Amino acid sequence: MLFHVRMDVNIPATLPAADAEAVKAREKAYSQQLQDSGKWRHIWRIAGQYANVSVFDVDSVEELHTLLTGLPLFPYMQIQVTPLLRHPSSIRGNDQ
Amino acid sequence: MLFHVRMDVNIPATLPAADAEAVKAREKAYSQQLQDSGKWRHIWRIAGQYANVSVFDVDSVEELHTLLTGLPLFPYMQIQVTPLLRHPSSIRGNDQ
Amino acid sequence: MLFHVRMDVNIPATLPAADAEAVKAREKAYSQQLQDSGKWRHIWRIAGQYANVSVFDVDSVEELHTLLTGLPLFPYMQIQVTPLLRHPSSIRGNDQ
Amino acid sequence: MLFHVRMDVNIPATLPAADAEAVKAREKAYSQQLQDSGKWRHIWRIAGQYANVSVFDVDSVEELHTLLTGLPLFPYMQIQVTPLLRHPSSIRGNDQ
Amino acid sequence: MLFHVRMDVNIPATLPAADAEAVKAREKAYSQQLQDSGKWRHIWRIAGQYANVSVFDVDSVEELHTLLTGLPLFPYMQIQVTPLLRHPSSIRGNDQ
Amino acid sequence: MLFHVRMDVNIPATLPAADAEAVKAREKAYSQQLQDSGKWRHIWRIAGQYANVSVFDVDSVEELHTLLTGLPLFPYMQIQVTPLLRHPSSIRGNDQ
Amino acid sequence: MLFHVRMDVNIPATLPAADAEAVKAREKAYSQQLQDSGKWRHIWRIAGQYANVSVFDVDSVEELHTLLTGLPLFPYMQIQVTPLLRHPSSIRGNDQ
Amino acid sequence: MLFHVRMDVNIPATLPAADAEAVKAREKAYSQQLQDSGKWRHIWRIAGQYANVSVFDVDSVEELHTLLTGLPLFPYMQIQVTPLLRHPSSIRGNDQ
Amino acid sequence: MLFHVRMDVNIPATLPAADAEAVKAREKAYSQQLQDSGKWRHIWRIAGQYANVSVFDVDSVEELHTLLTGLPLFPYMQIQVTPLLRHPSSIRGNDQ
Amino acid sequence: MLFHVRMDVNIPATLPAADAEAVKAREKAYSQQLQDSGKWRHIWRIAGQYANVSVFDVDSVEELHTLLTGLPLFPYMQIQVTPLLRHPSSIRGNDQ
Repeated sequence: MLFHVRMDVNIPATLPAADAEAVKAREKAYSQQLQDSGKWRHIWRIAGQYANVSVFDVDSVEELHTLLTGLPLFPYMQIQVTPLLRHPSSIRGNDQ
Repeated sequence: MLFHVRMDVNIPATLPAADAEAVKAREKAYSQQLQDSGKWRHIWRIAGQYANVSVFDVDSVEELHTLLTGLPLFPYMQIQVTPLLRHPSSIRGNDQ
Repeated sequence: MLFHVRMDVNIPATLPAADAEAVKAREKAYSQQLQDSGKWRHIWRIAGQYANVSVFDVDSVEELHTLLTGLPLFPYMQIQVTPLLRHPSSIRGNDQ
Repeated sequence: MLFHVRMDVNIPATLPAADAEAVKAREKAYSQQLQDSGKWRHIWRIAGQYANVSVFDVDSVEELHTLLTGLPLFPYMQIQVTPLLRHPSSIRGNDQ
Repeated sequence: MLFHVRMDVNIPATLPAADAEAVKAREKAYSQQLQDSGKWRHIWRIAGQYANVSVFDVDSVEELHTLLTGLPLFPYMQIQVTPLLRHPSSIRGNDQ
Repeated sequence: MLFHVRMDVNIPATLPAADAEAVKAREKAYSQQLQDSGKWRHIWRIAGQYANVSVFDVDSVEELHTLLTGLPLFPYMQIQVTPLLRHPSSIRGNDQ
Repeated sequence: MLFHVRMDVNIPATLPAADAEAVKAREKAYSQQLQDSGKWRHIWRIAGQYANVSVFDVDSVEELHTLLTGLPLFPYMQIQVTPLLRHPSSIRGNDQ
Repeated sequence: MLFHVRMDVNIPATLPAADAEAVKAREKAYSQQLQDSGKWRHIWRIAGQYANVSVFDVDSVEELHTLLTGLPLFPYMQIQVTPLLRHPSSIRGNDQ
Repeated sequence: MLFHVRMDVNIPATLPAADAEAVKAREKAYSQQLQDSGKWRHIWRIAGQYANVSVFDVDSVEELHTLLTGLPLFPYMQIQVTPLLRHPSSIRGNDQ
Repeated sequence: MLFHVRMDVNIPATLPAADAEAVKAREKAYSQQLQDSGKWRHIWRIAGQYANVSVFDVDSVEELHTLLTGLPLFPYMQIQVTPLLRHPSSIRGNDQ
């Protein structure tokens, strides 16, 4: 089941640089593990912004919420979720 | 080069039903041909709306514009384009 | 799986009154059948507006979309879907 | 009498973690007591956000306001209230 | 119980002038009867607009909705309802 | 001459609690004196918010501005003023 | 007493050209008579738009509303009124 | 050449009171000197807000920008510029 | 003197196709003549939209307004004007 | 390939003045080097704001993103990117 997720990141200037680097490193590892598992199907950077557009493939809304709130950068993010589904014109087998 | 495109469709009630069906059929054929060519990489329906989220993979903005304005439903669409790029955390080879 | 759905209805003045009554009657029957099945879990009117707030309980986003686009009033509606999940403080067994 | 309430929570980073945990614990107890009494009829989490959608069943707007401003997290919340009523198509006895 | 109601009126140009006058006359009679009964406690015109700000004093949201949807101009109005309550600093006995 | 005034209050967390209490006490006294004089004709709390809707009856815009900027809570308020006038359907002698 | 008024004009294409010219001619005469009387103190065109920014100098909100709703183009306008007053730094005698 | 300028002032609470008074005094002197020169043609306070609506009469956009960025309160302002021109219905010689 | 102009075009479906083509042809000729004169310095299409971003170089706001309202497509356009000036970091001689 | 970029700058008051000057100097040098290379084709100041409108000419979205995130002022900017293309009416050879 697919969800379109937009994440806008805003790390406060008061966070020490070392802490910011550490949380970004954990974010990257977390993201790659979820991509590897197939749950985080796509992630693209939005040009000129500290933001991404992602597509998640999960078994339930609960699972999606658990994955999103587990993001190391979650406390610094604005997140917007839009449910998606296979388009009747799609010819891509796995865009379901 | 990737672009995130949101299309909201609003076919006016004054368009005869047969014409509406014809333009939708042409839209589907047009879309599938572009998906087949790899230019229209993803298309998903937004739940509860006559709208889609798509990702195009084109060689230039000019090509993107030509493809979008060639959509049979273009006169009845609101289109919003957002440029994307590979995310530094992405592990997917072709999400570049 | 729960989804919060807001529907704003706007029947055009050009629709003949008899047609409008007919589509409203079909809408009511359709809604009550889905409520009876447990898929359309809640529906409330918003005070002073021709609009409702609903909660759907479905197995997938696909099923939700099929139910919503099957609404007899769908062509005259603006629909906004928000995915919900059980709140950690909830004590209600079936608000999952 | 039913009211749709959306609460968006934003605990400032300057609040010490222990204080934040304490206020969240009091919030949970307060919420569950109101749910138990039937005043706070529904509460759902919005996917990907520190926010909830709730339905209150109260005897008056005054009672609703007293309950909302008594929330331990009230100082950190944005609250939006929408009055609801039984929908004419509803078949649920207690969605009145 | 008090509700703040803003009504914006937009009578379509396609409505014949005689019909428009008739519906406005019925609206005025309807409004004055409700004011007389104490249910429609205040009504003020907004300067420069075909719109009003009103305060209703009703026993329930259901009653409010019945009164508003019974407005002869209801099909041509945008209505926004905000629940009010007595302010702790108020010295006016009947602004409760 | 009547003006609809909406005031949204946002006292910063950095204001010491004793100072906040003091300014609120002065606000209440100031408001009640103006209500007593007839200048501040109505004040209602908006449900679930630290905000009010008020109606002022003043001799000029200058007088209104002087009263509003004299509010002890003025530095912490967002204020929106809308000019009102007697509605042609009003039957209330003093809603002029 | 001064009011800032923004008027956006949108004459529907269905109005016959002769009628449109006639109403514009009446609008101009009406505006110039009010300017001549001193009630319509300023009127400027907004660059690139069929819109104006005006300043009215009236004795009351009632008078302002009467003048605005008497505009021949009033049925085709969106009007936004903002109350103004003399600025404490103003050195212009008549900008009061 | 005329420009409509709206300035919203927001002096941060962290600015010491003496500094705030000093910058306001410089702002007033600066404004009055520009009014005296004819460049700052009008300035009005917006009722209930720390904001003004002004009209500047300058020889170029460059000159306007230089005047605005030279405002002592510029760092604490939100500024919105709208180009104006003589209205074809205007009878005021100097509203050009 | 430079102005940033965004034009969104919306030709109504009720305009006969031949008329639409004729007005577009006149628009193109008008635009190219102004580009040739140096008044319409830049024009770019916005990808996926029937809209453009332009930069005009004119002697006054009056001239800009005359040029814009003379556009054959003006009745079908939404236009937004933003005054520009040479950027202090610009190295381009003619971007003044 | 052309992109319209709007940058709004907001340097926090907590940044020491010397640091602010240093970052601005680096920004200017960075901008001029990119202008010199032809990548940053236009830059204009928006009148009355600490903001600019720019046009970039790059080989790819990736290159654009690299240039923008390399801006010394990037952490203090809101950036909005809009893809542009040659307008069919353009007569300017290099506005492609």
